[in-house]
Amino acid sequence: MPVNLVASVAADLHPIAGVRIGVAEAGVRKANRKDLTVFLLDEGASVAGVFTQNRFCAAPVQISREHLSSGQPIRAMVINTGNANAGTGADGLARARSTCIALARQLSVAPEQILPFSTGVIMEPLPNDRIEAGLPAAIADAQPGHWARAAEGIMTTDTLPKAFSAQAQIGGATVSITGISKGAGMIRPNMATMLGFLATDACVSPAVVQQLARELADGSFNRVTIDGDTSTNDSFVVVATNKAAHAPITTLDSAEGQALKAAMLAVSQKLAQAIVRDGEGATKFITVRVEGGKTGDECRKVAYAIAHSPLVKTAFFASDPNLGRILAAVGYAGIDDLDQTAIDLYLDDVHVAVQGGRNPAYREEDGQRVMKQAEITVRVLLGRGDAADTVWTCDFSHEYVTINADYRS
Amino acid sequence: MPVNLVASVAADLHPIAGVRIGVAEAGVRKANRKDLTVFLLDEGASVAGVFTQNRFCAAPVQISREHLSSGQPIRAMVINTGNANAGTGADGLARARSTCIALARQLSVAPEQILPFSTGVIMEPLPNDRIEAGLPAAIADAQPGHWARAAEGIMTTDTLPKAFSAQAQIGGATVSITGISKGAGMIRPNMATMLGFLATDACVSPAVVQQLARELADGSFNRVTIDGDTSTNDSFVVVATNKAAHAPITTLDSAEGQALKAAMLAVSQKLAQAIVRDGEGATKFITVRVEGGKTGDECRKVAYAIAHSPLVKTAFFASDPNLGRILAAVGYAGIDDLDQTAIDLYLDDVHVAVQGGRNPAYREEDGQRVMKQAEITVRVLLGRGDAADTVWTCDFSHEYVTINADYRS
Repeated sequence: MPVNLVASVAADLHPIAGVRIGVAEAGVRKANRKDLTVFLLDEGASVAGVFTQNRFCAAPVQISREHLSSGQPIRAMVINTGNANAGTGADGLARARSTCIALARQLSVAPEQILPFSTGVIMEPLPNDRIEAGLPAAIADAQPGHWARAAEGIMTTDTLPKAFSAQAQIGGATVSITGISKGAGMIRPNMATMLGFLATDACVSPAVVQQLARELADGSFNRVTIDGDTSTNDSFVVVATNKAAHAPITTLDSAEGQALKAAMLAVSQKLAQAIVRDGEGATKFITVRVEGGKTGDECRKVAYAIAHSPLVKTAFFASDPNLGRILAAVGYAGIDDLDQTAIDLYLDDVHVAVQGGRNPAYREEDGQRVMKQAEITVRVLLGRGDAADTVWTCDFSHEYVTINADYRS
Repeated sequence: MPVNLVASVAADLHPIAGVRIGVAEAGVRKANRKDLTVFLLDEGASVAGVFTQNRFCAAPVQISREHLSSGQPIRAMVINTGNANAGTGADGLARARSTCIALARQLSVAPEQILPFSTGVIMEPLPNDRIEAGLPAAIADAQPGHWARAAEGIMTTDTLPKAFSAQAQIGGATVSITGISKGAGMIRPNMATMLGFLATDACVSPAVVQQLARELADGSFNRVTIDGDTSTNDSFVVVATNKAAHAPITTLDSAEGQALKAAMLAVSQKLAQAIVRDGEGATKFITVRVEGGKTGDECRKVAYAIAHSPLVKTAFFASDPNLGRILAAVGYAGIDDLDQTAIDLYLDDVHVAVQGGRNPAYREEDGQRVMKQAEITVRVLLGRGDAADTVWTCDFSHEYVTINADYRS
C-alpha cells in the first residue's frame, strides 16, 4: 500500500538521447518475470557511481567499482533481480565477471566497459548461465523509450515501478533527465538493496559527473538510509550522454552547473522518496526535520535516531501521538552535551513539546489529527545553533514483518 | 509467549536480611493493579546504581543520581509503574521530589535517603498524589519474603514476573543474593525501561558496591541493550545490607570478592536474560557470540549489529535460514578494515559460511533445523584476533508490532 505513489507511465518519461534500454525474462529465480535489464550507452557518455559502504559488499559492487576506475569508457550496464550475488566469495566474483564478458562480447566492447548490478536473495550462487542466456533477448529489446519498462525490470519487493523525469534549460538547450529506482525495505534498509540509475543528455565533463553522483546521492538516497549506504548491493549511477546542444559543463559552480544539479537533485529526491513511499508495509510517509543544531551532522544523527526507532515507527503506524518516544530518540542520538530543556517538538503545525516537556497548550486530539494523516512532518528544534537537516522515512507495520519473514518463500 | 521462562515462585527466593518489600495498588494508570513497590532498607546498607545514558533521562533518574551522590545512606526505594515521569521537565522533577518527601516523612528519614523509580508511558504528568496516597499501604505490606510480589509489582508489558536467587559461601558464611527485573521491549529497547534490583546480605564496602554495580551491569543488562543504556528510565541498583557473618569485602580482587561477584553476576545475567526471554512478541532466545576480533569492543559492535537488525530478527521469527542477512550485518557493523574473506559463521553446530561465502558442505535443512529451535546461538568468527563478546536478543514478530502499536490503549 504505497503512500501517495503512482506507477510511472512511459508517456511521462523523456527518453535520453544516447541511452537504450532492454528488458528480458531470464528466469533468474522465478519464471515469467522481467528480471534482466540492460542499459546500452552510446560512445561518449560520462558515467559515475556511488556504492554501498558495507564491508560485505556484493561481487557486482566490487566489479562495478573496478570497472569504473579502469578508465575505460562505460558502454553498458546489466541488472538482474532474484539474486544479489552477495556473500558468495570468489565464486560470486567469477560469475559476475562471466556476465560482463558475455555482454561485452555481444556488444563488441571490453568487459571493463560493463557495469553489473544484482539484487535479490543473498548467499546463493548467481545463476549467471541463465542471465547470459537472456542477454540476447534483452539487447534485442533495447529502445530509448523503455524507461518505464526498466523500472519494472529492476523491481524486487517493490509494489510499484519507480521512474521520474524532468527537463531543464541549460545554456540555451533543453536537456532531459530521467531516472529509475528500486528498493522497498525502509525500516532499516541494511539489506533491501536500493538501486538508482539517473541519466541526462546534458554535456558534463567526467569529473563533474563524479561530483554530481556524490552530491546527488548525498541529497537524496543517503537521506533515506541509516549509517550511509549499508546494504551489500546499494548502487547509484549517474550517466551524462553529452548529446545536448550546449557547451560542456566543467564545474558545478557555474550557473549551468547549478541549474543542472538542481534539476537532477529534484528527480533524485523523487526517486529516493518513492522508495520510502513504497517501503515494505509502509502506510505513512514521514519527513523528519531537525533544526537548531550546531552542525548538520548532529541534526542528521538526531533525525536518523528518530527515523529508525521501531517504537517511534510503530506509534506512527498506530496513529498514536506517543510523542515521548520521539524525545527519547533525540536523547539517545549521541549528542553528549544535549540540553533536554532546550528542545521543542512539532508534529506538522502542532507544538507538542516546549523546553523538553509537554507543551501546556498541547491537546492530544491535535496530535491525533496529525498522526492520522498519510504524510507527517516531525520537526525537532535543538536550540543549539543554526544547522538543519532532513531525512525521510515511513512507519512500521505488521506488513513489514510479514514481508520480511516470508521474503524467500 | 516467553521463551523458556517460568514465573518466579516465592519459595525459591531467599529473603535478604535487612530488606523488606511492600506492594500496593495506587491506581497510577489503571485501577486494581499492583503498581507501587517500596523497598525498605535497614541502616547500614551500601547502595549503588547504574543509570541510563539517555540525555532525555527521566526525572526519577536525575533524582536518584542526585540522592546517591549526596552521601546520605539510602534507606528506601519507591517504584511506580504506569507512568515513567520522563519528558516532563521541571514539573516532573517536582513531582518525583514530592514522592520522596512523602515517603521520607513516613520513614523518619531525609528525602535524600530515598531513590525513586518510574516506568510506563512518558510525557504525561506523574500522578504523584495517588502514589503518595498509596505509600502507607505499601509500607504496611512490607515483608522480607515479598520478592516475588515485588517482581509482580514492577511489571509493565512483561508477561511474567522476573526474580532469581542464589546463595554462596563467603568467608565461612552463607550469603544470599536475590534480585528482580522488568522490561520487555527487546527489539531495540530504547524506551522499554529496564529496571533491575539486586540485593545481598553480604558485607561489602560502599566503594566495592559501586564497582560491583558497574561490572554486573556491564556483564548482564548492558549485554541486552543497544548503545549502552538508552531508555529514559533504565536503572540497575545493587544493595549490600552487610548483615552476613563474614569479614567485609574491601576489594573485588580478593577470593571472597571474586566468589561474591560470580554469584551475583549469575543472578544478574538470569535477570537480564529473562527480559529477553519475555521480550515483546519474542518467540526465540538468541545468543550472539562473536569471536576472533581484535578487541572486545569490536566483537560487541558486530554482535549488536546482528542482534538489532530487523531483517535478521524477522528471519529468526520465520525460522528462515536467510543467513546472508547475518553476514550483511557483520559488514555494516562499523569495522573499517574488515576482511570479508576471513569470516566464518555458525548456527549452533552448523557451519554455514566459510571465508565469507557459503560453506559448500552446508545444507539448507541443517540451517532450518537450528532455526526452528526456541534457543539459537549465532557464532561469528572474525579471524582477526583473540577477543570475543556475547549479547543476547530475541526475534521480531507480528506480536511486537501489535504490542507497541497498542501500548497506550
